[in-house]
Amino acid sequence: MSDLIVSKWLNTKDEISLDNLRGSVILVYVFQMLCPACVIASIPQANKIQQMFAQEKLQVLGLHSVFEHHDAMKEQSLIAFIHEFKVKFPVAIDKASVSRGIPQTMEKYSMQGTPTLLIYDKVGDLKLRRFGHVDDIELGFILGSLLS
Amino acid sequence: MSDLIVSKWLNTKDEISLDNLRGSVILVYVFQMLCPACVIASIPQANKIQQMFAQEKLQVLGLHSVFEHHDAMKEQSLIAFIHEFKVKFPVAIDKASVSRGIPQTMEKYSMQGTPTLLIYDKVGDLKLRRFGHVDDIELGFILGSLLS
Amino acid sequence: MSDLIVSKWLNTKDEISLDNLRGSVILVYVFQMLCPACVIASIPQANKIQQMFAQEKLQVLGLHSVFEHHDAMKEQSLIAFIHEFKVKFPVAIDKASVSRGIPQTMEKYSMQGTPTLLIYDKVGDLKLRRFGHVDDIELGFILGSLLS
Amino acid sequence: MSDLIVSKWLNTKDEISLDNLRGSVILVYVFQMLCPACVIASIPQANKIQQMFAQEKLQVLGLHSVFEHHDAMKEQSLIAFIHEFKVKFPVAIDKASVSRGIPQTMEKYSMQGTPTLLIYDKVGDLKLRRFGHVDDIELGFILGSLLS
Repeated sequence: MSDLIVSKWLNTKDEISLDNLRGSVILVYVFQMLCPACVIASIPQANKIQQMFAQEKLQVLGLHSVFEHHDAMKEQSLIAFIHEFKVKFPVAIDKASVSRGIPQTMEKYSMQGTPTLLIYDKVGDLKLRRFGHVDDIELGFILGSLLS
Repeated sequence: MSDLIVSKWLNTKDEISLDNLRGSVILVYVFQMLCPACVIASIPQANKIQQMFAQEKLQVLGLHSVFEHHDAMKEQSLIAFIHEFKVKFPVAIDKASVSRGIPQTMEKYSMQGTPTLLIYDKVGDLKLRRFGHVDDIELGFILGSLLS
Repeated sequence: MSDLIVSKWLNTKDEISLDNLRGSVILVYVFQMLCPACVIASIPQANKIQQMFAQEKLQVLGLHSVFEHHDAMKEQSLIAFIHEFKVKFPVAIDKASVSRGIPQTMEKYSMQGTPTLLIYDKVGDLKLRRFGHVDDIELGFILGSLLS
Repeated sequence: MSDLIVSKWLNTKDEISLDNLRGSVILVYVFQMLCPACVIASIPQANKIQQMFAQEKLQVLGLHSVFEHHDAMKEQSLIAFIHEFKVKFPVAIDKASVSRGIPQTMEKYSMQGTPTLLIYDKVGDLKLRRFGHVDDIELGFILGSLLS
């Protein structure tokens, strides 16, 4: 399992690495703090998933992949966002590319925008890479399949 | 797997029996057509599940278990309800008891009211008997577990 | 102001007549108890309006205009519906026509179906006759205009 | 009518002053771009009001009153927010106080937080100052009263 390319982790004391989380199902919510669908739909869903499955071998992560308005969504703004939106899971900052357009993880995975959801199974295989909000029933179904 | 006690099946040409459905996950949505939570939340969810998982070994059934206002929810009204709410799955009428209060399947399963959701796994074991509407993520999770 | 053509009033001790309500703004929610949009959107809105404006010169009425599935939505079923959906305002039964298709008030007002909302101002002029659910902001705006 | 205390107007070519808008009903949506209730409920409502009443003598304004996380919600971030959330009405930046805690308009009006809605009638009297999201029906009612 190749890892996320991250400049910094927030909201966590531990070093996070997808490899170290092997054995758990991992959801990576790729978002921008000024993306309406992320803020209105995906981050609330991520918070809910994190609470509902706290007892399961499941880890929710955020990945802040800024590909536009870079100056508007810097680390200091993201920290306030995490606080205000009561995000309790670790959030990574996707590493900027030299040219400062699309960040490196977003480019590596050929993501089309935000929100995007990545889901890895317990052995680290990428089982879902979906652009756009994922329906609750479908998401629950995927998690039930991967955790059983 | 003990079966539902039914006076009549609607919305189906086939004879339905839980035993004959063995091999499929079965959801039985127990409802009354004049129960607000059933009409506003559970029946729309049942319709959605039926469409989403049409390709899976999953069968959605309705069970109309009238325990109050019996004269208001007779077969003729139920038939119109099924038509108007675009219910596409088979619906059973829970068999009235002699005393005409709680119908027989509802009594047999000690249900507390409607909506109630029963879920059987592929070998016919009852895995869920829940009074009240079931959250979409949780329901998806259960289905993912049972179908994988 | 010509009146509704009614076979019976339910959920009220008083005789109701639009003429006798002159001086109040009157909302008539025309519905069928098995019409999904009525049950999911319009009746809850009607209940909310009735509670919000209890102190105002405003009267909410229901009109049960059955134009299909007549045998499925008889008085006894409607009484149970009113109880289960916690309808607190008077509900009239639109008088059946001889041919038993479209009932008489529905025909008189050339309504296209249910839900339909009729709104009369304080002097009894019909200010709105709208087929389909009315948006909350727009409805509030109309009431604010007519009550000020 | 005393005016807003503003350091800068965004999203407008014209100079905005409440006094110059006399003759119109004015809604001032006081918000912070990282306040969840503002982003999820109030800004979408403001956008809707602005579209619905484009033909009426009604002006929607935003007031960005930052009282916490000041470094996270600077002008550059607000400009991106306005773009991403498709805000089409003028937005003022509430003028910071010397001590940099609560900004000046927020203090002058003794606001308790965000979202807050201020509504002025056509002659410039403040008719509503409400902390928290305002229900659609109630808001429509107020607008109907003030515009009729």
